[in-house]
Amino acid sequence: MCNLIFMKFHIISVGNELLSGRTLNTNLQTICNKLADIGCTVSRSYIVRDNCDEISWALNQAISADSDWIVLSGGLGPTYDDMTLSCTASTLNLPLELNEIALEMIIQRYTDLVSQNVIDSFSITDSRKKMAILPKNSTPLNNDVGTAPGVLIKYENKNIVCLPGVPKEMENILIHEVFPLIDYDKVDKVTSKVLYIDGITESELAPIIYEFVSTNDLYIKSHPQGITDGIYHIELVVSYQSKKFSESTINSIIEKLISSIKIHDNIRVKY
Amino acid sequence: MCNLIFMKFHIISVGNELLSGRTLNTNLQTICNKLADIGCTVSRSYIVRDNCDEISWALNQAISADSDWIVLSGGLGPTYDDMTLSCTASTLNLPLELNEIALEMIIQRYTDLVSQNVIDSFSITDSRKKMAILPKNSTPLNNDVGTAPGVLIKYENKNIVCLPGVPKEMENILIHEVFPLIDYDKVDKVTSKVLYIDGITESELAPIIYEFVSTNDLYIKSHPQGITDGIYHIELVVSYQSKKFSESTINSIIEKLISSIKIHDNIRVKY
Repeated sequence: MCNLIFMKFHIISVGNELLSGRTLNTNLQTICNKLADIGCTVSRSYIVRDNCDEISWALNQAISADSDWIVLSGGLGPTYDDMTLSCTASTLNLPLELNEIALEMIIQRYTDLVSQNVIDSFSITDSRKKMAILPKNSTPLNNDVGTAPGVLIKYENKNIVCLPGVPKEMENILIHEVFPLIDYDKVDKVTSKVLYIDGITESELAPIIYEFVSTNDLYIKSHPQGITDGIYHIELVVSYQSKKFSESTINSIIEKLISSIKIHDNIRVKY
Repeated sequence: MCNLIFMKFHIISVGNELLSGRTLNTNLQTICNKLADIGCTVSRSYIVRDNCDEISWALNQAISADSDWIVLSGGLGPTYDDMTLSCTASTLNLPLELNEIALEMIIQRYTDLVSQNVIDSFSITDSRKKMAILPKNSTPLNNDVGTAPGVLIKYENKNIVCLPGVPKEMENILIHEVFPLIDYDKVDKVTSKVLYIDGITESELAPIIYEFVSTNDLYIKSHPQGITDGIYHIELVVSYQSKKFSESTINSIIEKLISSIKIHDNIRVKY
């Protein structure tokens, strides 16, 4: 197996709608995809309800694990059940305070909405001010496409990031504000190739894969795709560390793997 | 707020592909949706890698919480990294043993595949037998659409269910094998209505919703949908306990809510 150097992330998704079945958690896949692209690993994910005890439980679990970054998404808005920041503050034993930079970001957002004629005028109500009340010593992160700023908290040797649950706002802050803060010296990209295999059952393939990963420095995962027209289909994802593997090494490993798999004539492999 | 009687579920999704961004966790939404339909609540969800320590961590957390049912999906197949059953056994301190009923289910599945000409013949290899090696005193659950049987383990006062990760297999066993085992006397269905609101910001709506849920026995969650053609759009999900609320009570509450929201003329509400 590969011995990879990873920057480790824990992801906490907050929201009743993710556990009622109403909302598909596309945010988690987006975060995992974007992090995989830059060579980071998501070690674990938690999905919790809009409940302070639950948010606190997840945060404590993520802190006590070997995470470098903890990303929470959801619960930054103006409504009564948006409680991520207040729960994070109480969990970390930090006081909440009005952050002037965050307040300025919110005022700028509403000023823009007035200039775009989306709203006629605005005042900074308690609900709007709530989005600028952050745990002490937080850094607000600019939200280009929505109102609630993201929040970065340095805690012990970890970075805790709170992002909105609205997908385009979450993604905007992740890419434009969080990614530039990651220490890329500590990450090493993992690359994958996908093989499509027809005509063999996963249970026939199992010992071949086991033998192969035991003697080669990579990771293989099989995904059975069911039976179509009386033929079994399997996807095989072969992952390796890109800095270590050259393109020719990868190709020769894949050829060796394909030879191992083709135990009878009617097995087809393509990639 | 409602004081609902719930049958509480914890869901554990197992699989590197769910944390690498490769696979969207539709299984979780399916399980949550199906459980919500029958009045059960998902209290919390964990997504972990194909790693025994991680599976064990999630299972221990779910056991120590106030769950009635714990559902694991993924990791029941024949390959080396399908380790849900062996990790569950070690976590619960139960020996693994060949379950004859599970083995019979697997033999029957391959016999069917031979009769359908999908495979020419079969033998019970170690990889195939692996899917019938279950924690002691488990009940195998029939899988109509795949090979690996589901597994039910009674542990203290909880039911632990292991389901395959392949979506149609997971859903088949959940509906046909698990649902008939749920004690419906202990569940009470929650019904929701969705209101679509145009022309008001979420921060203007926040104090109105807060006032409304403080004085009415229901739960309201707002989902901002962004700005289109210069107009704000928000979805409001109003949830209540169906056995308690009659249709006329619900309608009168919704009318009262709409009156509260229409604080100026250009706000439109429909449902």
